Amino acid sequence: MATEVLKQMVLAMGQKARAASRSLAKVSTTVKNEALRAMAAGLLEHAEDILEANRRDCAAAREKGLSAAMVDRLTLNQQRLKAMADGILEIATLHDPVGEVPKMWRRPNGLLIGKVRVPLGVIGVIYESRPNVTADTAALCLKSGNAVILRGGSEAFHSNRAITRILSDAASGQGIPAGALQLVETTDRDAVHELLQMDRHLDVIIPRGGPDLISLVTEHSRVPIIKHDKGLCHTYVDAHADLEMALRVCTNAKIQRPGVCNAMETLLVHQSVASYFLPQLSEIFSPAGVEIRGCPRTQAILPGARAAQDQDWDEEYLDLILAVKVVDNIEEALAHIERHGSGLAEAIITSDYANSRRFLDEVDAAAVFVNASTRFTDGNQFGLGAEMGISTQKLHVRGPMGLEDLTCTKYIIQGSGQIRE
Amino acid sequence: MATEVLKQMVLAMGQKARAASRSLAKVSTTVKNEALRAMAAGLLEHAEDILEANRRDCAAAREKGLSAAMVDRLTLNQQRLKAMADGILEIATLHDPVGEVPKMWRRPNGLLIGKVRVPLGVIGVIYESRPNVTADTAALCLKSGNAVILRGGSEAFHSNRAITRILSDAASGQGIPAGALQLVETTDRDAVHELLQMDRHLDVIIPRGGPDLISLVTEHSRVPIIKHDKGLCHTYVDAHADLEMALRVCTNAKIQRPGVCNAMETLLVHQSVASYFLPQLSEIFSPAGVEIRGCPRTQAILPGARAAQDQDWDEEYLDLILAVKVVDNIEEALAHIERHGSGLAEAIITSDYANSRRFLDEVDAAAVFVNASTRFTDGNQFGLGAEMGISTQKLHVRGPMGLEDLTCTKYIIQGSGQIRE
Repeated sequence: MATEVLKQMVLAMGQKARAASRSLAKVSTTVKNEALRAMAAGLLEHAEDILEANRRDCAAAREKGLSAAMVDRLTLNQQRLKAMADGILEIATLHDPVGEVPKMWRRPNGLLIGKVRVPLGVIGVIYESRPNVTADTAALCLKSGNAVILRGGSEAFHSNRAITRILSDAASGQGIPAGALQLVETTDRDAVHELLQMDRHLDVIIPRGGPDLISLVTEHSRVPIIKHDKGLCHTYVDAHADLEMALRVCTNAKIQRPGVCNAMETLLVHQSVASYFLPQLSEIFSPAGVEIRGCPRTQAILPGARAAQDQDWDEEYLDLILAVKVVDNIEEALAHIERHGSGLAEAIITSDYANSRRFLDEVDAAAVFVNASTRFTDGNQFGLGAEMGISTQKLHVRGPMGLEDLTCTKYIIQGSGQIRE
Repeated sequence: MATEVLKQMVLAMGQKARAASRSLAKVSTTVKNEALRAMAAGLLEHAEDILEANRRDCAAAREKGLSAAMVDRLTLNQQRLKAMADGILEIATLHDPVGEVPKMWRRPNGLLIGKVRVPLGVIGVIYESRPNVTADTAALCLKSGNAVILRGGSEAFHSNRAITRILSDAASGQGIPAGALQLVETTDRDAVHELLQMDRHLDVIIPRGGPDLISLVTEHSRVPIIKHDKGLCHTYVDAHADLEMALRVCTNAKIQRPGVCNAMETLLVHQSVASYFLPQLSEIFSPAGVEIRGCPRTQAILPGARAAQDQDWDEEYLDLILAVKVVDNIEEALAHIERHGSGLAEAIITSDYANSRRFLDEVDAAAVFVNASTRFTDGNQFGLGAEMGISTQKLHVRGPMGLEDLTCTKYIIQGSGQIRE
């Protein structure tokens, strides 16, 4: 697409979204929930249109030689559409944060000052994931009163377009302003650059995808971003650990779903329990197909383990591979986590009160666990409801991002003619 | 300075700050307050060193031909040093947000989940203002447990260096880790670019200065930023206003201190009261030296007023100039504010309940006032204590930025061996 045409197209989307966001901010929770229910119904009603579009995407993906796993992630069917619709219905049941007044106080001069939650405005979401992200994102943004501009992966282009059109029509039918939900309907990569420059019409950009996407957005965005970077999670088995619990938790953290950001990538074990604990772990992990890459002390205990290289301590495997290091004490564990952790989730298994407190206090991560699996790092598991990714940055939101994190506050000040002296 | 040397210097500062931030996060409130008191005492004790350095800056400024007003802003004396020290002592009395647990809850599976306030980590502050900002910023960052790298304006270079060294020595003497407070000790502009790239060691950059600085930082920073953009504040005098109150509030908003971001720049007046209200306003504003630039209807009422040009509705005068527009109704006022407002502070003067609610609900700004002066948009006036500028963005903090806004949260999860099903 010619640069100027593309620029104008993206700009027009931004202006339309900004205008829609002004009205959307005033829409009642009741109307938003009605719209969400209509959107869920729309997906099921027009299932065949979506599946038809999806077949085009899947055929193109096979032609391009994408792996069977990738094609499977892309593929929609009645059951997956039903799950998408159920996801939207669940968001309709969540508490609407807009309009809440978390604080209000009176000043000595009589001014009544309150902080009220309002939508952020217009959110840009750039993602590479499965088509279900399209529906989740649309629903979360609508419920929190935000207009959204979606830019999905090119593999899912036809699926995303079909889904967005159906959702947008259903929402409009319930009084949601046009422009509240838009998809960038081109696979031209320059569209992403145009979005990143549009700080006048976008209040935040949320990139959801691999390290290349995150790096591109961090480098070039004029718009504030909320990023979800990699997850390199550690579990530290302390000298004073209930080793049966440690086995159970480590197994869950590594094996239950190894391909996600909150799975364990590195195990740290106190030297006083390593020779007893690691062989037991190996008895579970070996048959499960987990490859262990160990430090020299680990290899001395588990002669079958491969030697860990320096880069193993910094690698997010997202696979059935585990780096294992034997440490002298909790200080070494904390130092290792400080140096190699990604700031997402870290866990200690211990029965010692002082060590549990120290781990909670000193580890600098979005989620710090005592005696539980890092796999719980998730909006639903925390009780926040559906989430919009997990933020690994410190500004605005850290950890699972729920509806409240898609809002900001404004001060409202009610006076009776006060002036400043 | 050679690029590579500069790069290494700034990088070393970042590493030192990161290391310091880890220990600083664990320092108790008591120790931080002792350090603040020692810093205040240090400023007074070494007053002569600071004044000597300041004389060098002022002489250079005069030589460069800076205006008398600029030189005055730069100049320090015993009285201003005393005010700086008092500012630090006041910060010692503020509540420390670090360690607070704003929420904690138990999940059905027994996991106890809490959100705890922690420092952001390392803050970069790039500023152009008076040397007192150096002391304020150092104290606010220390109290909130953050390491800080300061980059002040070149005019105040010697003053800032003297102040920072004294403050840093005083803090170290009380057990604050070295590296917690550092100043970029070069006026080389490339140092700013190096800071903007250092997303590994800086958690946030706060630019405080003119539009050129804000634009530079927005464009080039890889580090998340909190910006304080311009303030173009409106006051709308409604049909149902107490006009005596309106006069008092408008006078305060425009004249009490015209050179600041929360002063009124544009007055909107309902047509039904304009012919009565504007002449009265003019009787106060003319002798006070306020130049009025009016729309045609304003000029019809005040024949002496200059004609407002299109650009007047978008200009932050920071001076004794006021743009005045007569509007047909509250809708026109809201539309004008939506189009021209900067999102900082907006006010309505009205006795009508519905209009007051509508203005509070619909205006999208950090602070929305009913029947009070926009000049109250200030951390101290809101009761937040000393502030670190006023954020005009929506992410993380909006409006006056207090100590709490220099923190983020982390989740702490206490379990008893829970695993995810």
